[in-house]
Amino acid sequence: MEFLARQSRLFCPFLNKTSPTTLRALSASSASGNGVSNLQVAARECPVMGAAMAVQSSRSYATSTTPLHFEQSSPSKANETSIDSVHAQAGVFDTSKGICKHGLAVMKAAQAATGESVEVTPAVKTAPSLSKRHTNAFNYEDFYHAELTKKHKDKSYRYFNNINRLAKEFPKAHTNSEKERVTVWCSNDYLGMSKNKEVLKSMHNTLDKYGAGAGGTRNIAGHNRHALELEAALADLHSKEAALVFSSCYVANDATLSTLGSKLPNCVMLSDQLNHASMIQGIRHSGARKIVFKHNDMVDLENKLKSLPIDVPKIIAFESVYSMCGSIAPIEKICDLADKYGAITFLDEVHAVGMYGPRGAGVAEHLDFEAHANGRPENTVMSRVDIITGTLGKAYGCVGGYIAGSAKFVDMIRSLAPGFIFTTSLPPAIMAGANTAIEYQKMTITDRASQQLNTRYVKAKLAELDIPVVPNPSHIVPVLVGDAAMAKVASDMLLERFDIYVQAINYPTVPVGEERLRVTPTPGHGPELADNLVSALETVWTELGIKRVKDWEAVGGLAGVGVKDAKPTKPIWTDAQLGLTPVTGVQADKVVVEKETISAIPIEAAA
Amino acid sequence: MEFLARQSRLFCPFLNKTSPTTLRALSASSASGNGVSNLQVAARECPVMGAAMAVQSSRSYATSTTPLHFEQSSPSKANETSIDSVHAQAGVFDTSKGICKHGLAVMKAAQAATGESVEVTPAVKTAPSLSKRHTNAFNYEDFYHAELTKKHKDKSYRYFNNINRLAKEFPKAHTNSEKERVTVWCSNDYLGMSKNKEVLKSMHNTLDKYGAGAGGTRNIAGHNRHALELEAALADLHSKEAALVFSSCYVANDATLSTLGSKLPNCVMLSDQLNHASMIQGIRHSGARKIVFKHNDMVDLENKLKSLPIDVPKIIAFESVYSMCGSIAPIEKICDLADKYGAITFLDEVHAVGMYGPRGAGVAEHLDFEAHANGRPENTVMSRVDIITGTLGKAYGCVGGYIAGSAKFVDMIRSLAPGFIFTTSLPPAIMAGANTAIEYQKMTITDRASQQLNTRYVKAKLAELDIPVVPNPSHIVPVLVGDAAMAKVASDMLLERFDIYVQAINYPTVPVGEERLRVTPTPGHGPELADNLVSALETVWTELGIKRVKDWEAVGGLAGVGVKDAKPTKPIWTDAQLGLTPVTGVQADKVVVEKETISAIPIEAAA
Repeated sequence: MEFLARQSRLFCPFLNKTSPTTLRALSASSASGNGVSNLQVAARECPVMGAAMAVQSSRSYATSTTPLHFEQSSPSKANETSIDSVHAQAGVFDTSKGICKHGLAVMKAAQAATGESVEVTPAVKTAPSLSKRHTNAFNYEDFYHAELTKKHKDKSYRYFNNINRLAKEFPKAHTNSEKERVTVWCSNDYLGMSKNKEVLKSMHNTLDKYGAGAGGTRNIAGHNRHALELEAALADLHSKEAALVFSSCYVANDATLSTLGSKLPNCVMLSDQLNHASMIQGIRHSGARKIVFKHNDMVDLENKLKSLPIDVPKIIAFESVYSMCGSIAPIEKICDLADKYGAITFLDEVHAVGMYGPRGAGVAEHLDFEAHANGRPENTVMSRVDIITGTLGKAYGCVGGYIAGSAKFVDMIRSLAPGFIFTTSLPPAIMAGANTAIEYQKMTITDRASQQLNTRYVKAKLAELDIPVVPNPSHIVPVLVGDAAMAKVASDMLLERFDIYVQAINYPTVPVGEERLRVTPTPGHGPELADNLVSALETVWTELGIKRVKDWEAVGGLAGVGVKDAKPTKPIWTDAQLGLTPVTGVQADKVVVEKETISAIPIEAAA
Repeated sequence: MEFLARQSRLFCPFLNKTSPTTLRALSASSASGNGVSNLQVAARECPVMGAAMAVQSSRSYATSTTPLHFEQSSPSKANETSIDSVHAQAGVFDTSKGICKHGLAVMKAAQAATGESVEVTPAVKTAPSLSKRHTNAFNYEDFYHAELTKKHKDKSYRYFNNINRLAKEFPKAHTNSEKERVTVWCSNDYLGMSKNKEVLKSMHNTLDKYGAGAGGTRNIAGHNRHALELEAALADLHSKEAALVFSSCYVANDATLSTLGSKLPNCVMLSDQLNHASMIQGIRHSGARKIVFKHNDMVDLENKLKSLPIDVPKIIAFESVYSMCGSIAPIEKICDLADKYGAITFLDEVHAVGMYGPRGAGVAEHLDFEAHANGRPENTVMSRVDIITGTLGKAYGCVGGYIAGSAKFVDMIRSLAPGFIFTTSLPPAIMAGANTAIEYQKMTITDRASQQLNTRYVKAKLAELDIPVVPNPSHIVPVLVGDAAMAKVASDMLLERFDIYVQAINYPTVPVGEERLRVTPTPGHGPELADNLVSALETVWTELGIKRVKDWEAVGGLAGVGVKDAKPTKPIWTDAQLGLTPVTGVQADKVVVEKETISAIPIEAAA
């Protein structure tokens, strides 16, 4: 496929020279504003296409008035779009096959070039369906088409970028071409543990000794020392009695909430408005009553708790770090309310494990940083949280998810949750690698401190340029764009012109109008790379005329940006915890310290 | 933890010498029949315990009449059970802590020895909860306890065995002791691909180049050449337009059925009675109307289809190979009914991919074996199936799941299913390994033919001894026990006495009364190992007095065993497909041919 695409690309000198992003930008933009995209305009100048299009326009053949636009094209052939439809309109069909031969080659080249959705490409030799479905039957294919059209229309159709992160060149990746390099600025491999030597060594050794896959569910041949050791490490990390590993934290959240909610009699779920899809699905699947409370709003939560009988089981489900805006939950206050109203707390630390606390246990641990740094304290915020869930796929660099809590709770989920019981265990090498990552991060704060310092640096530099960042105390840098199409063009331009990959985050992941670029620095994103990013963003903001902080101020602010008299947001990692001396007046360009400096800070001293 | 357990074990000379299985068998058995387990009887002979128990029996201190039985012990401390309760009854409590000091050490040793549920063991230093939950609040811990008690009472509480499959000694594994070897006879690594050199090489190389984890969801930095290549390989495997990879096939089934069922207007799901939990959950989560049809019963299915309006969207959800009984669906007939009544077909080939068909695409491909072996035919059973789902974690030896179908269908699921969208991609090395396994199995039938021959051998040998196997045409060997406690004791005895690991399959995985040992031969389970297994089963059947085929005949048969005038079941792999000459009169001990013989059969010749 790749080979064919490369070959095909040679057919068209235009495609051959034009980058994926430019192609996409051309198809998404229209200089004339009359629904004719810039790609169509360019196509008219092509000696092959131009002639064909002229013929076409003299016929009534092409009745479609669909503008030549990737996101409005036939969803079933999302990638054939633009170029293919130009060819279709041009009437150069091979009618025996129903497709344009030149178009097919060009389409394949365009697919390969854009690196998009090649998974929806018809296989080269597809056996046609024998189906002789009843003529009055429901038309399934039309229905799929209509659903996709909706996604195209509301601009929520997703195009995936082919990004191959290179372990030895972290944080660089190659694109569909092995020679092309981009800097990845949006991965959730927050600490670069996916390329950590200890992790890789542990995985290689385990792969050699125990093979590729676990070979069964936990009940049938898939329970092993790796699972036992990993779960012991996780229970220890969160100072809980027990832990249980799942295929992913999506599954952990879904399975745990749906099991709890369906089993606990008359259970009520109190769910933060910004909770992750996995928690929303888990609550939905439980069939339990759900009450959504305003994001991090303790007054609203208390009012809702107050309205429920004290003896009814209640679960307050929330996250520590909300990944799209970087806000942090008031965990201790939520625990207070839970105690007062007889609820239990379900805390998703997915974006915080490995990243906060002296041992990397997350924000709950971070809130007693000094105490945890100095020993294994009792009576902590972390010990008050009933259920903690986390991932092995972000800061720990592997894949998988887990829950931690009381022995009885964990044993009940282990015994009842279909999403745990009826699925193949994670491979031994994955569990061993994750375990190594956890133990590694328990022993040092170097990586997460560097990550925080690099985050501070980027935030400070963007602030200097008035480029809007949704204010937050965490490691997330949500750069506000405020428009879906613009966010995509900005992301494409960064990739195309600056070899910087930051995915645009659009609806439904964020509300319409709050579209953003979500930047996630790592310890590997030092000042040089950060300066490149900031200067690229400055250019993009200027060229595309994207709103600055002052522009948001002028319209009353949005998503915390440009809000009048807003209290400044303090990072949750304090200067003292980062080992920075004199606390006040730290300049952005002084903030980044070398890894060596950080690594010299023992956990106790950092506290 | 492991270290502590090993140390603790030294405290007790009895535990030190006694194997996990014996301990479990002792606690589960009672020679006296008065509720006093054999472990309690043995404990009375212990100089420490015996004296303590004598003191105890003279007091009214221990009021519990719970027999000393693992499965009836306190579920919160499932593993403290037996031995701990002996100590508890013996009154050697450290009352300040509420636990028996000697008991704790012994308990930990027993845990380590049995390798069971160490995940529910309290962490060494657990910070007590600060929770000052309202006194009238719902008692969550008591509720968990009660749920676990139910599981213990109905014998469905699961004990996991610590089994570490060794790549270089396939199909051997070590237990919690690295020195102990057992032969694994129940893994779903049906072809031993988890130790395949090509697969491991591909994984090592990918790990080195691209690191441990994908670093994000498919939308954010987790889409790469490995995903593209794997999905292209899967689409090609099933001759479908497109494919999509998920964390597991549990997630693939759940996400796909729930998305389809919730989106298609007034959708009705027709679900085979024996469908896997993932499909049941997916249908439940969809909120769509569900109609269960009798297992593989086309008359029942047609009656149910007939009752529905033709234009209502309907999905017939079924499996090709049902893993617990080995039955195979009449795929072609189901496609006929789907066409006639305007339904689409959703076929789970989880236990069949890699195992059937000349290229390993599953049973749907196998039904046109010769045509597929000779090229890429059109108008096949496989092309008639609308949606195929499969796993990368069984015959392909890795982990993960997928769907394959039309481009529009796959693109819709890609665009709408939260279980796909909001989860971290599989690691590059996993995707690369799975891809290698798929391509490897496309090129040769050696492994799956050997697997089938070894299956025939085991089935024939067991038939000679009148040991009951649920008759089926597939690679599964379900050895019927017919009693939950007995199945567990049989499994334990195989492990303990014969170093053979076959998990007991109890309710709810199979109906009460149909408990079984599910044996899964692989190409690595040649005649020598098979003879060991069969002879071990003969001993177990004799010693435990488990029913033979003639006994089932006497009671009218069960699960197809001992059913009068039952038609003989023919294996779906024909003698011709296996390259066996003269078709009739093949003796069991002649069936196993050397791998070399098989590998000499080109796919075309085998057809």
